Amino acid sequence: MKISDLSRQSGVPLATLKYYLREGLLPPGASTGPNQARYGEEHLRRLRLIRMLQEVGGLSLAAIKEVVSRIDSYEPQTLDVLQSAVDALAVRSPEQQQGEATREWQEAAREVDAFLDQVGWPTRATSTARKQLVDVLIQLRQLYPGLPVTAYFPYVRAAGEVAQEEVAHIMEALQADPSEALEAVVLGTVLWEPVFTALRRIAHEQLSRRVLGSAQSQKPRPEGQGQGAQEQA
Amino acid sequence: MKISDLSRQSGVPLATLKYYLREGLLPPGASTGPNQARYGEEHLRRLRLIRMLQEVGGLSLAAIKEVVSRIDSYEPQTLDVLQSAVDALAVRSPEQQQGEATREWQEAAREVDAFLDQVGWPTRATSTARKQLVDVLIQLRQLYPGLPVTAYFPYVRAAGEVAQEEVAHIMEALQADPSEALEAVVLGTVLWEPVFTALRRIAHEQLSRRVLGSAQSQKPRPEGQGQGAQEQA
Repeated sequence: MKISDLSRQSGVPLATLKYYLREGLLPPGASTGPNQARYGEEHLRRLRLIRMLQEVGGLSLAAIKEVVSRIDSYEPQTLDVLQSAVDALAVRSPEQQQGEATREWQEAAREVDAFLDQVGWPTRATSTARKQLVDVLIQLRQLYPGLPVTAYFPYVRAAGEVAQEEVAHIMEALQADPSEALEAVVLGTVLWEPVFTALRRIAHEQLSRRVLGSAQSQKPRPEGQGQGAQEQA
Repeated sequence: MKISDLSRQSGVPLATLKYYLREGLLPPGASTGPNQARYGEEHLRRLRLIRMLQEVGGLSLAAIKEVVSRIDSYEPQTLDVLQSAVDALAVRSPEQQQGEATREWQEAAREVDAFLDQVGWPTRATSTARKQLVDVLIQLRQLYPGLPVTAYFPYVRAAGEVAQEEVAHIMEALQADPSEALEAVVLGTVLWEPVFTALRRIAHEQLSRRVLGSAQSQKPRPEGQGQGAQEQA
């Protein structure tokens, strides 16, 4: 299709498309003459990726350019490219990067690394997900001084179970068409995150209601008539 | 302590403190004379809440004001206040609010509600977490047309397991000091979210490495010499 059709089908203004092409966010179309090119499905797919990374991932255009350039640098080492693209999803601010040099951060990083080794997930030092775990541990300790890193354990279990099912799909897709699959993995990483976030909040509400409900029905019980079994429930 | 000490201890500039006081983000100190007031631990705690909601939660000051005002409107109905404060964490953009009126959104909402009923978590229509699940379902279907809402199931299990342990702590805290606990719950909601996000990304990497590693070692195997048992591993 022509660039005007690409604009109509995607809903992205022509000027924005030209900007994306100049910036390398959108790969060039197949040349059909001077100043003429043909665009296809992969361009529509790429535009959807850009929009969702903006809207759901909250990424800046500069960060999206980085993610996209890593996808486009696809070579046979699929896993490296996948890691590198997913790393680029978590943009580290200059303050966060400076923080990595502090002694507190380095010590927390050693604890996180030992923990990840212990659960059988030894992780690259350059992984931005690992750095995020270190940042959060330091923040959590402002709230709960002395919190052990093993407090992450229930999350390891939960994340492992979810990832197990997802990775099977990822691998199927990578075997079918690696470059298309890389975009799908990056999108899937971002799109599914709010599902867990939202369901955890809903689970909190459900469980709190049950606990508070049963606590209220227990309240008026006179002193000295303990109902041991019920309290355990 | 005086406001100048509060500024030094918290690292928040005096002008910002005065702005927070004017806007009601920070409760007034105990008056000790004309234009003089004393500030305490609860003010330091509140400043930490504001900073973390900005830095970790990515919330605007207007959104933080809403969260804080709901915490401050604390009354005996703890659960309602808790729900209302957590709802305010997920700010819905005008586009998202408009989207709720569309037929596509209403239909997806019915599917989400039926699903939540089915898993035993019937949820308030006003819950912003529920609305987030509807938004994401629509976005995911752009990527995977016809995706059933039951694809959320592994996340329900994971979120339920994590929440079970967290709610026990929340309830303990609410019984000790409700107003302090509400701040802790709001902070905990936001602070722990990146832990799951990061660990899921790490789990993807770990599992992909294992799958790709074993796939590569299988690759050079000549046709017709299937190793059934190994493929199942």
